[in-house]
Amino acid sequence: MQQDTDITLITPDAPIGADTHGGRAKCLQRLARLNLPIPPTIALSFKAIQRIAAGDMPDMRALLSQLDEHALLCVRPSSEDSDWGGPRAVLNIGMSGAMCETLGARIGPEAAKRLYLRFVESYAIHVARLDPDMLDDMPGDPEDALAFALRVYEDEVEEAFPQDPAVQLAEVLRSMARAWDGTTARLLRQAKGAPADAGLGLVVQEMAIGLGRGECGSGVMQLVNSKSGARQITGRYLSQSQGRDALSGGKEALYLERDPRGPSLEELAPEAFAQLKSHLSEMREKLREEMQAEFTIENGKLHLLDGVRVARNARAAVSIAVALAEDGIIPREEALMRIEPRALNELLHRQVDPEAKRDVLARGVAASPGAATGKIVFTAEASQAAAARGEATVLVRRETTSEDIRGMHDAVAILTERGGMTSHAAVIGRGIGLPCVVGASSIRFQTAARKLTAPDGRILKEGDEVTIDGTNGEVLFGRAPLLDAGHDDSFQVLMGWADDVRDIAVRANADTPMDAQMAHNFQAEGIGLCRTEHMFFEEARLRVMREMIFASTSADRAAALERLLPMQRADFADLFRIMKGQSVCIRLFDPPLHEFLPSDRAGHRELAEALDLPLSKVTRRVEALAEYNPMLGMRGVRLGITVPEIYEMQVRAIFEATLQVAGEGVEIVPEIMIPLVSASREVELVKGRVDSVAAAVRSETGRDFAFRLGVMVETPRAALRAGDIAPQVAFLSFGTNDLTQMTYGLSRDDAGRFMSEYVQLGVYPEDPFHTLDLDGVAELLSIGAERARAANPNLTLSICGEHGGNPESIAFCRAAGFDYVSCSPFRVPVARLAAAQLAVRDKIGAA
Amino acid sequence: MQQDTDITLITPDAPIGADTHGGRAKCLQRLARLNLPIPPTIALSFKAIQRIAAGDMPDMRALLSQLDEHALLCVRPSSEDSDWGGPRAVLNIGMSGAMCETLGARIGPEAAKRLYLRFVESYAIHVARLDPDMLDDMPGDPEDALAFALRVYEDEVEEAFPQDPAVQLAEVLRSMARAWDGTTARLLRQAKGAPADAGLGLVVQEMAIGLGRGECGSGVMQLVNSKSGARQITGRYLSQSQGRDALSGGKEALYLERDPRGPSLEELAPEAFAQLKSHLSEMREKLREEMQAEFTIENGKLHLLDGVRVARNARAAVSIAVALAEDGIIPREEALMRIEPRALNELLHRQVDPEAKRDVLARGVAASPGAATGKIVFTAEASQAAAARGEATVLVRRETTSEDIRGMHDAVAILTERGGMTSHAAVIGRGIGLPCVVGASSIRFQTAARKLTAPDGRILKEGDEVTIDGTNGEVLFGRAPLLDAGHDDSFQVLMGWADDVRDIAVRANADTPMDAQMAHNFQAEGIGLCRTEHMFFEEARLRVMREMIFASTSADRAAALERLLPMQRADFADLFRIMKGQSVCIRLFDPPLHEFLPSDRAGHRELAEALDLPLSKVTRRVEALAEYNPMLGMRGVRLGITVPEIYEMQVRAIFEATLQVAGEGVEIVPEIMIPLVSASREVELVKGRVDSVAAAVRSETGRDFAFRLGVMVETPRAALRAGDIAPQVAFLSFGTNDLTQMTYGLSRDDAGRFMSEYVQLGVYPEDPFHTLDLDGVAELLSIGAERARAANPNLTLSICGEHGGNPESIAFCRAAGFDYVSCSPFRVPVARLAAAQLAVRDKIGAA
Repeated sequence: MQQDTDITLITPDAPIGADTHGGRAKCLQRLARLNLPIPPTIALSFKAIQRIAAGDMPDMRALLSQLDEHALLCVRPSSEDSDWGGPRAVLNIGMSGAMCETLGARIGPEAAKRLYLRFVESYAIHVARLDPDMLDDMPGDPEDALAFALRVYEDEVEEAFPQDPAVQLAEVLRSMARAWDGTTARLLRQAKGAPADAGLGLVVQEMAIGLGRGECGSGVMQLVNSKSGARQITGRYLSQSQGRDALSGGKEALYLERDPRGPSLEELAPEAFAQLKSHLSEMREKLREEMQAEFTIENGKLHLLDGVRVARNARAAVSIAVALAEDGIIPREEALMRIEPRALNELLHRQVDPEAKRDVLARGVAASPGAATGKIVFTAEASQAAAARGEATVLVRRETTSEDIRGMHDAVAILTERGGMTSHAAVIGRGIGLPCVVGASSIRFQTAARKLTAPDGRILKEGDEVTIDGTNGEVLFGRAPLLDAGHDDSFQVLMGWADDVRDIAVRANADTPMDAQMAHNFQAEGIGLCRTEHMFFEEARLRVMREMIFASTSADRAAALERLLPMQRADFADLFRIMKGQSVCIRLFDPPLHEFLPSDRAGHRELAEALDLPLSKVTRRVEALAEYNPMLGMRGVRLGITVPEIYEMQVRAIFEATLQVAGEGVEIVPEIMIPLVSASREVELVKGRVDSVAAAVRSETGRDFAFRLGVMVETPRAALRAGDIAPQVAFLSFGTNDLTQMTYGLSRDDAGRFMSEYVQLGVYPEDPFHTLDLDGVAELLSIGAERARAANPNLTLSICGEHGGNPESIAFCRAAGFDYVSCSPFRVPVARLAAAQLAVRDKIGAA
Repeated sequence: MQQDTDITLITPDAPIGADTHGGRAKCLQRLARLNLPIPPTIALSFKAIQRIAAGDMPDMRALLSQLDEHALLCVRPSSEDSDWGGPRAVLNIGMSGAMCETLGARIGPEAAKRLYLRFVESYAIHVARLDPDMLDDMPGDPEDALAFALRVYEDEVEEAFPQDPAVQLAEVLRSMARAWDGTTARLLRQAKGAPADAGLGLVVQEMAIGLGRGECGSGVMQLVNSKSGARQITGRYLSQSQGRDALSGGKEALYLERDPRGPSLEELAPEAFAQLKSHLSEMREKLREEMQAEFTIENGKLHLLDGVRVARNARAAVSIAVALAEDGIIPREEALMRIEPRALNELLHRQVDPEAKRDVLARGVAASPGAATGKIVFTAEASQAAAARGEATVLVRRETTSEDIRGMHDAVAILTERGGMTSHAAVIGRGIGLPCVVGASSIRFQTAARKLTAPDGRILKEGDEVTIDGTNGEVLFGRAPLLDAGHDDSFQVLMGWADDVRDIAVRANADTPMDAQMAHNFQAEGIGLCRTEHMFFEEARLRVMREMIFASTSADRAAALERLLPMQRADFADLFRIMKGQSVCIRLFDPPLHEFLPSDRAGHRELAEALDLPLSKVTRRVEALAEYNPMLGMRGVRLGITVPEIYEMQVRAIFEATLQVAGEGVEIVPEIMIPLVSASREVELVKGRVDSVAAAVRSETGRDFAFRLGVMVETPRAALRAGDIAPQVAFLSFGTNDLTQMTYGLSRDDAGRFMSEYVQLGVYPEDPFHTLDLDGVAELLSIGAERARAANPNLTLSICGEHGGNPESIAFCRAAGFDYVSCSPFRVPVARLAAAQLAVRDKIGAA
C-alpha cells in the first residue's frame, strides 16, 4: 500500500517534501502548519504519478475515503519548481447529474449547472482530448449549454459521461500524469532549466465553491507590487467565480483594498479581507518569503486554496529580499543569495515592458542589455547630427569600427548586420551601457540606399522608428513601452551588503572620462583596463596620428607624437582625477596602425590632400599596412618594439599626468600594461625604455613618482611562459578575449557566422566569448597564474577580458587566487554580487 | 716557467689539445706522430697568447733555444676551429741584413733579398701597422725594393728595422695576439659560430725555404675534388715560392699530376710527388679524414708544413664520408654523423656556384632552397604561356594565392614582395622544390606596370632575366653560373645507412601526384599530409566549386559536389597508386570558401555571367563570405560541420578510390584527417558522418574496406583537450604551422614585416615558423601527446607542419615518442639523416 508516503493527506506531520511531492504540496503543508484555513488535500508524490502514467492506478476508493464524500475536488500540478509548468488544474471533479441536483439545492440550480458544465468542458478537452472547437457553439443558457456539452461528449466518445467520482478522478490523474511525459511539455520545462527526469506531483483538494448563496467568489492577493517590490496590496477578486477567474475577470473583478476607482473586497467582506491580510503577513514571516494567496470565499467564509511565491521582476526581487532582511526575517547573506546576479542587468537598464505586445522585425545577438527607441540612421555622422538636434537615433551599420565611436556615443542604441558577443559594437555598447543588437543578418542591410528590409518584407527608411531590445536581441517595429532602470535604495543597500562579504576586488574597464565616471558611480575599485587607442580617433588627433603613420623618419614620427603628448597627458590626468587616487591600469597602444587609415578611395584622396602627398603614395602606404589577419598581426608590443616612439610618448604622458594631479592632491601610482606579449624578451625591451622615460621625467622635473609595470596575458604563449615574464613585472592581467580567440583559433569578429549553430549542436556548450571556457582557456589561465606566482609571489593577478563580469569567471578567478576582476562599468554590480555570493557559499560550505 | 704546457715543442708526446692549443697545433702533432717530415714547431697555447696580449711576453731566448738558430721562422694562427679565421701568417722571421748575407750564400743573393723583402713588408704592415699604400711604389729590382721598404719603415717608425730575431718574434706574437682581440675579428668569428671567449693559439715553425738552388718551391695537394668528392689529385705547385703562393700563381703554377695541359710536379720532382701522395694516403687513413697538405720542396726535398681538412661542399662531404666508411676507415655511423643534415639541401637543388661573382639586386627571405634563372613574368597566366613555349620564367607576384598554383608549377622560381617562411609561396615552393625568395620588400613591385625597381634604381621589365637564389634569399641580376644538384650514388648509399639506424618514420607532405612521386623517389614512408584544397583550383573544378558556394539549398550544393566526386576519386586513386600501398593521410577540406571566389570586380562580373546571376548577388555573397581574420574563421571542421556535404563528398571519394585501387591489387588503409579541431564534439559529429558514408559505400558495393580517422591538432585548445579527442580516433597529427600562429598570436602571412627585426633584437631567438619553438609551442605538443597517449595508448602521433623536416623538431618528436614526422618531399632526406643522427647519438650516449 502506497498510502503512507506516496499518497498522503497533507497534515503538519505528513512526510512531504518539495523534491518528492512538489512545491505546491510542500507549500500547502507549510500553510497547514500555520493553521491557515486550507481545505483537506491529498498529495500524490512524483513516484505515484510515475506509476499512474505507467498504468498502475492506485485504489481510488481508498483515496477518496480520506476526503469528504460530498465535496467536489480539484487536481492541481505540484512540480518541484513552479516555473517548470505542468498540466492545467481540473476543477469540480465529482460533478454528475446526481451531484448537480444535490448541490443545486444548496447553491442554486444554475450555479450548480455552471460548475457541472465547467467540469464537463475541461474533462472533454483535457481528459477525453476532444477538439475544443466542438464546444464552440455552446448555447448561452447554462442548462442548454450543459446538455449540449454532454451530447457532444457522448457523440464523440461514444460513452456516457462518467458519473462515478472515483472513475472521474482516476481518469483525470491518468491524463495529467501522461501529459507531463509529452515531448512538448518536456522540452518546454527543460528550456526553463528542469532536469530530464523532473517529476510531477499532484494534489487532490476538497473544493471550496466560489458560487452560490451569500458572498461567494475567488481571487488572488499579495502584499507587494510585483514590478517595483513596493509594499502595496495587489490582486483581484471576482464574485461567483472559481480558481483564478478573477485575474481574467475584466471589469467585473473587484479591487481588494478600499479603492476610489470601484467596489472592493474590503467593503464586501471586511472580515475575510482582514483575515487574508493577516494570513499573508504570517506567511511572509513564517515562510520567509513574499507570498501570493489564492483564495475562495464561500458564503462569506475564507478558504486559502494555495500560496505561491510572488512573481517578481529583478527590481522587485531586490526590494523584497532587502525588506525581508531588514525586517529580520532572513539574514543579509540569504538576501544576497536570493538575487541572480545577471538579473541585475534588468535594473541597470531600461527594459521593454514584459507585458507589452512586441512587433518583432528581426532577431540578432543580444549584445548589450537594455532597450531604447530611436530613429534609424546609417552613418555615425548622421547620428552626431541628430544628437545635435536633440533626436534619439538608432545607429545602423554593417559593422562598427573605431571611426564610428563618436556616433555610437551619440546614439541611443546600435544595430549591426555582422558580429557576435565580442564584436566592436558589442564591446563598446556594453562599455557605455548602450542597448545593442548585433549579427542581425536576417535583415537585409542596404546601407548605401539607406534602408533595411525585414525578413517579412517590411522596409524601413532612415528616420523610421525602431526599438532595440538588447536584453533579448530583438529589433521591434516602432516605439515599444519601456520600463525605467531601477537602481533604487534597495539596490544600493544590497550592493553594500555584497561588498561587506566579498573577498575579490572588482574593477572596471573604462577608456574615457565618461566610462570612468560610470565606473566610479558603480563603485568599481579602480580601472582594470583603460584602452588608449580610442583616444586617437577624435578628429584633430586622428589627423596627427595619420601624419605619424606617414612619417618617413623616426624624427618626423617623434614630432607628430610630440603634438599628441599634451592631449594624452590631459586624458590621463582626467581619468586620475575622476578615480580619486584609485588604481588606473593603462594599456599601451594596441591596434594595428591601419585601423587609423581611411579604407576607401575618397578617404585616401582626402588624406593625400591633408598630408600634401601624391595619392599613389598614400594608397601604397595604406596597402602596405594592410594585413591578412590583423588580429595576429603587427600590433600591441610588436608595434611598441618596432616603432618605439609611440610607447615612449604614452609613458611620458602617464608620468607627467601623475605629477600634474599630484600637484592637485591626487596621489596615484599608475599601472602601465603591455599588450600582446608572447616572449619575455619583449617585456625586457619595453621595460628598459619605460625606465629611461621615467628617469628622464624625474630628472627634468626634479620630482619623484612611482608606477607599476605589467603585462596583458592574451597569447597562449604568454601564459605558458608566465614564469619568465613574472619576475620582471608587478602584475599580470589576463585578456581573455584574445586568449579565447587564440586558444580556439577563432576570430570573435568572424565567429558570429556559425556560433549559434555550434551552440545549438552542442559543439561548444556555450559561446566561449560569452562564458569563459573552463576546459581550455581557463587551463591556460591556471598554468599562467601558477607559474607567475611561483616566480614572483608578490605579483598582482587579474582578468580584464569581457568575461571579467561573469559569475562563472569570477568563481574561477577567486579559486585561482586572483586579486581582482575587471569588467564593463555596467557589469560591475553583477560582479560585486556574484563575488559576494561565492564568499557566502564558501562560508556556508565551511560551516 | 710556462714551457711545459703553454709553450711546447710539438712532439708525439707533448701535452697538446685542439681546445688548448688550437686545431693547427693538434694536427701538426698528429702528423709528427705519423713520422711525416714536418719542420720543428713550437705551439703556444690560448693561455700563452692571452698573456702576450695582456703584455706578459715569455722569454724569447728560451723559446728560440729550442729551434735551429740558423733557420727562418714563420708564425701561423691555430684557433679551435679553422673556420673562425685568425691573423695572417707571418713568414721569414729572423731575416736581417746579416742573415740575408748568410742565406744569400746558400740560395743566392737575389732569392735571399726577396725573402727579406717579404718579411719587411709583412712586418711593416701587420706589426708596425703602416699604411700599405706607402709601399705601393716599390721598385722592380729586388735589391732596390728591399732598400725602399727598409727606408719607408725607418722613416715612418723612426727606428731602424729590428735585426734581432728575438725582438722580431716577440713583436709578431704581440701583434697577432692583439689582432685576435679586435672588435671586427671578434664579430666576424662570432658570425661563424665562435663563442665569445674563443681562444687563439699560435705555432712558431722552422721554415723550409722554397727559394734557392735545385728544385725549390711550394704548393698544396689533396686526393679528392672539393666540389664532387671524386678521387682526383687536386692542387697547385709553384717553383721558387713560399706559403700558399701557388694558389694565386696564375699561369706559372704547375699541375701536380702529369697533365697534357702543361708541366707538372710529377715530372719535375717525381720522388717528392710520390712521397706526397703516399703521405696524404697515410694521413687519410690515420687521421680518418680527407686532408690537404701544404708543402715546400727545398732543393728536391719534401717538407710538410701543415695538413688541413679538405674544404668541401655538401656533395663532396657526402662522397668523402661514404668513401671513408666504405674503405673501412670510419664506421658507417660516423659517416652519418659527419654530414650536417641541412647541408643536404645543397645536394637536392641546383645552386649558384659559390665561386661565381654575384650581382645582387635585392635580398629577401630564403624561403625555398635552390637557384634558377628565368625571365620575369608578373602573372600565373604569363608563366603558363611561357612554359608552353618552353621558356624558363621567374614568377613575380606581390604574394601568391591558390589561384597561382598552376603558374607556379610552370615557373622555375618564385619571387614575392610579401610573406615569410610559411607564406603560400614559400610552402608551395618548398613542396615542389622550386627556388623561392619571399618578402623582398626592398624591391618596388609595380606589377600593374609590369616592372620591378631594385633598391639601387635598376629597373627590370617583363622578360628580363634574373637568377633567384632561394638558398641565400638573393635576387641576382641576369644569368648566374649554377651548379647541378648532386644526389648521386654516395648520397643514396648514405641515405640507406641512415634508414638502417633511424627509429622514427619520415613521411612527406604531398598534395599532387607530382608531389607524391617526389615523396616516393625520396623514399618517404607514406604521405603524412595531403591537402585536398589545391585539387579544386583547376579551372573546370573551380567553376563547380563556385556553383557549390552559390548554391542556395543543400540539394543544389550536393548536386555540384556530385560533379566533383569523380574528379576527387581519381585524384585519390592516383595518389594511392603512386604510393603503392604506403599510408596516405588525407586532410579534409580546410580553407575558407572565399578563397575560391574572385577578389576583383572583373572576376565578379565573369562569375555572375558564368552562374547566370545578377552581379549584385555575386558581390553580396562574396562580401558576406569575407572575413576579418580568415586564419581564425569559418574553415576546417567548422565548415565541415556547417556545410557537411563537402566532407561527405570527399570521404566518399576516398572510400571509392580505395575500392578502385584494391581492384588493381593496391591494398591501402586510407587515413582521413579532420582539420582545425578545437572541441572533441566536433570530432564526434564528423566521425558519425564519416561512419555513415562508409556504411553506405559498403552497402552499395557489397565490399568491405578499412580506414583510419584522425585529427590535425593545430589549435592550442585541441592540444589541451587531446585527452577527450584521442579515444575517438586512430591518430593525432600536430599541425605546427597553425599551432605556432595561435600560440604566438602571430599570423605567418603578416609576421614577415617585423620578424627579421625581432630575431635581430633577440626577441625571438629564431623565427618560430622556421624552427619549432621548444619553449612554448612544443610544450603544447608535449601536453597534447601525453594526454592523448594516456587516453588511447594505441594512438599514432606525428607532426606534419613545416617544422617536420627540421632536425630540432625531429629530436623533439623522437623524445616525445612520436611515430613519424612529415615534411616537404625535398626535406625528406634531411629528415631521414637527422633522425639517423639522433639514433646514433643515443646509441653512443647509452654505450
